[in-house]
Amino acid sequence: MASITKVGVLGGGQLGRMLIEAAHRLNISVVSLDPNENSPAKQLSNQPHHHGSFKDSEAVKRLAQEVDLLTVEIEHVDTEALRQFNVQPTAKTIEIIQDKYLQKVHLEASGVPLPEFESLSSLADAEKVGERFGYPFLLKCRKGAYDGRGNYVVRSRDDLADGWAALGGAMLYAEKFAPFTKELAVMVVRSVTGEVATYPVVETVQRDNICHLVYAPAQISGLTAERAADVARAAIQSFDGAGVYGVELFLTPNGILVNEIAPRPHNSGHYTIDACHTSQFENHLRAILGLPLGSTDLKVPAAIMVNLLGPDYLELTKRSLSVPGATAHLYGKDSAKVGRKMGHITLVGDSFSEVQNRVARIASDIQVVEPRPLVGIIMGSDSDLPTMKPAAVILEQMGVPFELTIVSAHRTPMRMVEYAKTARRRGLKVIIAGAGGAAHLPGMVAAMTPLPVIGVPVKGRTLDGVDSLHSIVQMPRGVPVATVAINNADNAALLAVRILGSSIPSYLDAMEKYMDEMEQGVHAKVDRLDKVGWKEYQTA
Amino acid sequence: MASITKVGVLGGGQLGRMLIEAAHRLNISVVSLDPNENSPAKQLSNQPHHHGSFKDSEAVKRLAQEVDLLTVEIEHVDTEALRQFNVQPTAKTIEIIQDKYLQKVHLEASGVPLPEFESLSSLADAEKVGERFGYPFLLKCRKGAYDGRGNYVVRSRDDLADGWAALGGAMLYAEKFAPFTKELAVMVVRSVTGEVATYPVVETVQRDNICHLVYAPAQISGLTAERAADVARAAIQSFDGAGVYGVELFLTPNGILVNEIAPRPHNSGHYTIDACHTSQFENHLRAILGLPLGSTDLKVPAAIMVNLLGPDYLELTKRSLSVPGATAHLYGKDSAKVGRKMGHITLVGDSFSEVQNRVARIASDIQVVEPRPLVGIIMGSDSDLPTMKPAAVILEQMGVPFELTIVSAHRTPMRMVEYAKTARRRGLKVIIAGAGGAAHLPGMVAAMTPLPVIGVPVKGRTLDGVDSLHSIVQMPRGVPVATVAINNADNAALLAVRILGSSIPSYLDAMEKYMDEMEQGVHAKVDRLDKVGWKEYQTA
Repeated sequence: MASITKVGVLGGGQLGRMLIEAAHRLNISVVSLDPNENSPAKQLSNQPHHHGSFKDSEAVKRLAQEVDLLTVEIEHVDTEALRQFNVQPTAKTIEIIQDKYLQKVHLEASGVPLPEFESLSSLADAEKVGERFGYPFLLKCRKGAYDGRGNYVVRSRDDLADGWAALGGAMLYAEKFAPFTKELAVMVVRSVTGEVATYPVVETVQRDNICHLVYAPAQISGLTAERAADVARAAIQSFDGAGVYGVELFLTPNGILVNEIAPRPHNSGHYTIDACHTSQFENHLRAILGLPLGSTDLKVPAAIMVNLLGPDYLELTKRSLSVPGATAHLYGKDSAKVGRKMGHITLVGDSFSEVQNRVARIASDIQVVEPRPLVGIIMGSDSDLPTMKPAAVILEQMGVPFELTIVSAHRTPMRMVEYAKTARRRGLKVIIAGAGGAAHLPGMVAAMTPLPVIGVPVKGRTLDGVDSLHSIVQMPRGVPVATVAINNADNAALLAVRILGSSIPSYLDAMEKYMDEMEQGVHAKVDRLDKVGWKEYQTA
Repeated sequence: MASITKVGVLGGGQLGRMLIEAAHRLNISVVSLDPNENSPAKQLSNQPHHHGSFKDSEAVKRLAQEVDLLTVEIEHVDTEALRQFNVQPTAKTIEIIQDKYLQKVHLEASGVPLPEFESLSSLADAEKVGERFGYPFLLKCRKGAYDGRGNYVVRSRDDLADGWAALGGAMLYAEKFAPFTKELAVMVVRSVTGEVATYPVVETVQRDNICHLVYAPAQISGLTAERAADVARAAIQSFDGAGVYGVELFLTPNGILVNEIAPRPHNSGHYTIDACHTSQFENHLRAILGLPLGSTDLKVPAAIMVNLLGPDYLELTKRSLSVPGATAHLYGKDSAKVGRKMGHITLVGDSFSEVQNRVARIASDIQVVEPRPLVGIIMGSDSDLPTMKPAAVILEQMGVPFELTIVSAHRTPMRMVEYAKTARRRGLKVIIAGAGGAAHLPGMVAAMTPLPVIGVPVKGRTLDGVDSLHSIVQMPRGVPVATVAINNADNAALLAVRILGSSIPSYLDAMEKYMDEMEQGVHAKVDRLDKVGWKEYQTA
């Protein structure tokens, strides 16, 4: 495929395994260096691999001599040895990133937003930092830390000595606690050719400091996601070298902050194998070999990744086999210690709600995340709420995530412009707009968004709603409004469900069920009329 | 994962390779038997494999002794040797299927629809068959045939002796030529537990008798696809044994006929790796090991698989790297002889049209298939056509596949019922219905389909179209019709495009472009008015 076809990888764990899986499909041969003779990566090819430590400069040298290019699946490697060889990302980048303090200094100098941090050389330093940052704050090891190891949350001054001792007291630094509402992550990939691509922004959920779940895409406004992707891309552009990078972020009330960076494929990007056009592993190879990058877009509407940690992993895997859209990836490790990553499961589906329901069939203790709204219900005035409420009731019953607010064409024209102009980017699929009298809201919104807009004519005190109906339905050529009957917000919601059904078949199933029930309801009345007779029949 | 965790596979080609790829993810170990020491399958694991022929009973025995269960990735194996071992599907099934004549006898006895066929023991027999079947008909080898080898099309009586000689003249049979309009294929998987699942019906395109393209799903009416799936399932239910089966079908003007069956993963199912929830390879393993079957549903709206045949394969692969949604699967074979399967590319996307455009960027000589309609335009009378035509013009301009026909609520009520009731299953996503006067068509159709129905009130000779407008828009609670302005079929089409945009983002992009152009059009008029002045300005 490329002029370079033999790649050496420092580390032979699950990341190396999934890298080799991708390499096979492109006839690229991969040799890994790992102390374990039957490591997860080595199981996947009949190549002779190298046995030894990726921290041992002699072992690294032997590998380098056999391959065209080196890369890493772990950043805790001997960067001194790497400097003399062709390696991606660069030895310098790995060196900066593997020392979290240097990483932060570098990012700060590049203007990337971060939680405040401070170097420490003594417990007395840490005390001073505690006064300045306030409690809680974080003590962190500069090197060798992963999966929460090497971090200590200092809750009060009394905690400080314990924390200092627990982390060994050397090579530590302090970080101000970021009051995050969500943890986000973005995989960014840059090729040796300079081409850059960004995967969707995801939400990560940690348990006992280990990544437990990844929600793709993050159920946040598309505008926030754009900002997060910008920050992640800027962070990576500050480093040299090709490959895929994992960027962990905090979403705080004051904006996006970078938490940590990994110069390699990352756990928060495993979902890309089943859910994106090109996985993080294949794109890592393409990037370091100078091949065109593959599309980083999701190919399914939603995905959730569940890490399989410790001894329960087989039980969870077995359950996943009966769940549609679930794919298990076991790593071929033999001893399932507590907290050890034994594999992961990716679930995909037609909507985030559907995938979340599927996850619940595998593990019951999953944190439920509010799905991002698909439908926006807006009305010109709170006096329209009684008329529009039935739409909300139906969407709630049908399990359609929605938002409801007041947007007035005549009293808040700029709010209307912003609402309509950002609707698609925020993630909405359909807008329901109710208005009375000279009802302009539906048509004006339709003029500023490509989304389908459903108009509900609200009946006013005069003209029986015919004024609203004609104002909404008689749109000029070029800008359609899907108009429903006067005051019939129920039908607006049912129409929204039918529209969503074009991409989410379960909504069409729900609609068929709804129509069946309507039909049964009339049959019941037929029976009652036959039984009671027309003289005694009481209309409900 | 299962009590049986070591599977032996007869054959080590690309099918075995992709089977091992799936096995790794479930920690199932696979040992393959193949004469090639570095066969595609063997490259994918550090297991010691077996070197030898899968037709050699001693070699089969040695493999069987080492594993818990045998399976095949090729049907041309020594079934005699297999009888004594635990093998899925059963030795008997493989034996029947590997002899195409016995396969047909078996299927015919099971009531499966087939082209007529006849056993032959001499050239004289073949002449008699030619008289009975007519020309062209097919001479076929009973055993050992694949990729079109072993088939001969006898175009006339003069061809007969050549064909007989070309195929060696022994173990042949004759098959009547099926006047097919498309070749279809279905993968069917049955577990040892009895569970059966069917993959989507696909269309296959052969070139020089070798599978070249697979379109998933086949762009045929969903009703025809249901019938094809039924025939395929019935064919497989007539055989014993677990695993995945490939069923090749002919779509003819008189219905579906079975062409051939393969008792193993099949080229027409490779698309399932990237496009379905669970691939044919993983489901083959699940089936033979008694694990629950995974969902066979597509996880993307559309996919096309392109086989990489012979020396061009690297060039096509390189091109595919720049195409979004394309995933290359190379098989690790070293010599690229003409017609040899070196790999395949799967392309996925949000719509069949999009995927077809993507394929054209890889290979320019791809046969274009008419996409299945997504929108149905119907009207009560041909007198409505002038009013409704603009909808067709816009859909054509926007590249939306559609159908257009006459359905009258009052004159063809049963046709309307059938149209509405089958609309979803046939594959439509949106219906546009135009009607005038006591306009019942949109509402009645909406009452019998869960799809979104857009109503266009057509203006009649009296009442200015207000009669139609009110008949269409004032639907009772429970059944919405998305009503647009009187005579405004343009807006109906634009609304359909917006609705499709909820699952096909490229349509929303097209809508944004359309709206931009409208805006630019007005700006141009502003400029002209400024330049010419209001006294001289001529309205277009």
